Amino acid sequence: MRIVGIKRTTSGPVEVAELRGPGNGAGIGGGEAVVPIADLEAFWADPGGHLARGAGGPEIPRSDVTLVPPVLPGARVFCVGLNYRKHHAEGSYADDPIPEYPTIFARWTSSLGVGDGIVEVPADEDGLDWEGEVMAWVGAHLTCADADEALAAVVGYSTFDDITARGAQKRTSQWTLGKNVDGSGPLGPLVPAAEVGDLRDGLRIRTRVNGAVVQDATTDELVFSVGDTLALISRTVGVRAGDLLATGTPAGVGYARDPQWLLTDGDVVEVEVERLGTLRTTVVRGRPNHSSPRGLGEQSLNER
Amino acid sequence: MRIVGIKRTTSGPVEVAELRGPGNGAGIGGGEAVVPIADLEAFWADPGGHLARGAGGPEIPRSDVTLVPPVLPGARVFCVGLNYRKHHAEGSYADDPIPEYPTIFARWTSSLGVGDGIVEVPADEDGLDWEGEVMAWVGAHLTCADADEALAAVVGYSTFDDITARGAQKRTSQWTLGKNVDGSGPLGPLVPAAEVGDLRDGLRIRTRVNGAVVQDATTDELVFSVGDTLALISRTVGVRAGDLLATGTPAGVGYARDPQWLLTDGDVVEVEVERLGTLRTTVVRGRPNHSSPRGLGEQSLNER
Repeated sequence: MRIVGIKRTTSGPVEVAELRGPGNGAGIGGGEAVVPIADLEAFWADPGGHLARGAGGPEIPRSDVTLVPPVLPGARVFCVGLNYRKHHAEGSYADDPIPEYPTIFARWTSSLGVGDGIVEVPADEDGLDWEGEVMAWVGAHLTCADADEALAAVVGYSTFDDITARGAQKRTSQWTLGKNVDGSGPLGPLVPAAEVGDLRDGLRIRTRVNGAVVQDATTDELVFSVGDTLALISRTVGVRAGDLLATGTPAGVGYARDPQWLLTDGDVVEVEVERLGTLRTTVVRGRPNHSSPRGLGEQSLNER
Repeated sequence: MRIVGIKRTTSGPVEVAELRGPGNGAGIGGGEAVVPIADLEAFWADPGGHLARGAGGPEIPRSDVTLVPPVLPGARVFCVGLNYRKHHAEGSYADDPIPEYPTIFARWTSSLGVGDGIVEVPADEDGLDWEGEVMAWVGAHLTCADADEALAAVVGYSTFDDITARGAQKRTSQWTLGKNVDGSGPLGPLVPAAEVGDLRDGLRIRTRVNGAVVQDATTDELVFSVGDTLALISRTVGVRAGDLLATGTPAGVGYARDPQWLLTDGDVVEVEVERLGTLRTTVVRGRPNHSSPRGLGEQSLNER
């Protein structure tokens, strides 16, 4: 099952829906269709129940709706940095020991998008960097949880690309701005955890740039597991249903290469994760000094 | 004028309202009252217009509503670290030069609260630290703005306390968890920018713990001005109406003292900013290993 967010009209509410065919053989006339499950708030009030019951209504052609991330505007996107040993070894932190605790940085939900979107290189950047990842979706409240309880609260996973503006990320000690470019966090459909299994079993994750493989790893290389990380977070911040955890990227990012390789005008980046699917994003160059109130990040979450 | 968020019922929508008396002599029978202005989304679609027109409806007794931050759930809370020279010199970064760019870290809106609330010390912390600040409220979209345009987009200011869990903040390179404890970001009413003037004129900001003054500075000591900081952010991230900017705290925080001084059970912290008012928060000790799904952060923003 693949779960997405949909909007039937520009100003309408976000609904959570099942995405059908052709990936799994269903769908109207062999094309893609969506079947609404619940309004966004209602879904996240009981995500496990909604996923277990599934979608039962009539199919709507995919072309009649706009896909958006099925994310509550106020959700936290907890992101783990430096969570694959070979990625830790390739970058700016190579001389430091592997951290004893997961390094958590923040994305705001307004930076998220969906597949087949466009992300614009910000004004002061030479390009954007790719970071293929797995995103975990939390379906319950967690306070001082243990790792088993935290892992059991994960209702699904998605392919994620943590597209990064390295200039802004590394200008100061805090990575915040470089990790929150509009539309820089495309997110694939949620696949229920029951269909995915445990990331410690090793899902293969590959990133391609214009077809060339740049990252190729398996999720059993994670330094900090999903359960351990959420448990640790929950000792400081109350985790809520609808929150997300980006689990970190493996080795092979662009800025650490010699010569450096960044995404620029017309480049297409794809992240493919076993059992979760492929996510494609096109990078474009911004106008030199654009002054319009909104850039091309229109595929990003526009509900607040 | 003092602008607040109100809820008339637990499950009802957030409205933006004017808070009246006794601070300014109005209000029902000399007590405090609120006058609704608009729904939250409607307010942030035209904050300047709503503030110019003011509130015109009937007064509601303050005791009939719950105050909440008038913040869109998906708003970004951009926070500047190390933005007063003497604070930079007292802490962990004292040996580094003053950064050439503002250091921006992230709060999610779920960490915000209002005055007279309670914040609980998280499980692994010796206590919580105070950080008296001024918060700026952005009222327009900004992309690649210059400093004058960015400053002109600020519709108001509030007293803010950036209450911090130092253990979690300093456990890794990224401050995120230590800056997002539930209810750790109490925020006073928004005062329109026209009544406040320019922070560069030097508003006095004082923090008191159980009555003792621990921070005393003026906002003309800011390293990076509000306009400069928002302009810089807008070159990487599209700033939107409803976003917030926490401008940083002056010297005198607790962790940098000898001996260290942190807030613990029963301590009361107050932040007072000239023209913006006083914000009071009580700190309580959490249960040793509480497992309830929600702590005492009930005064925090509970809309998503």
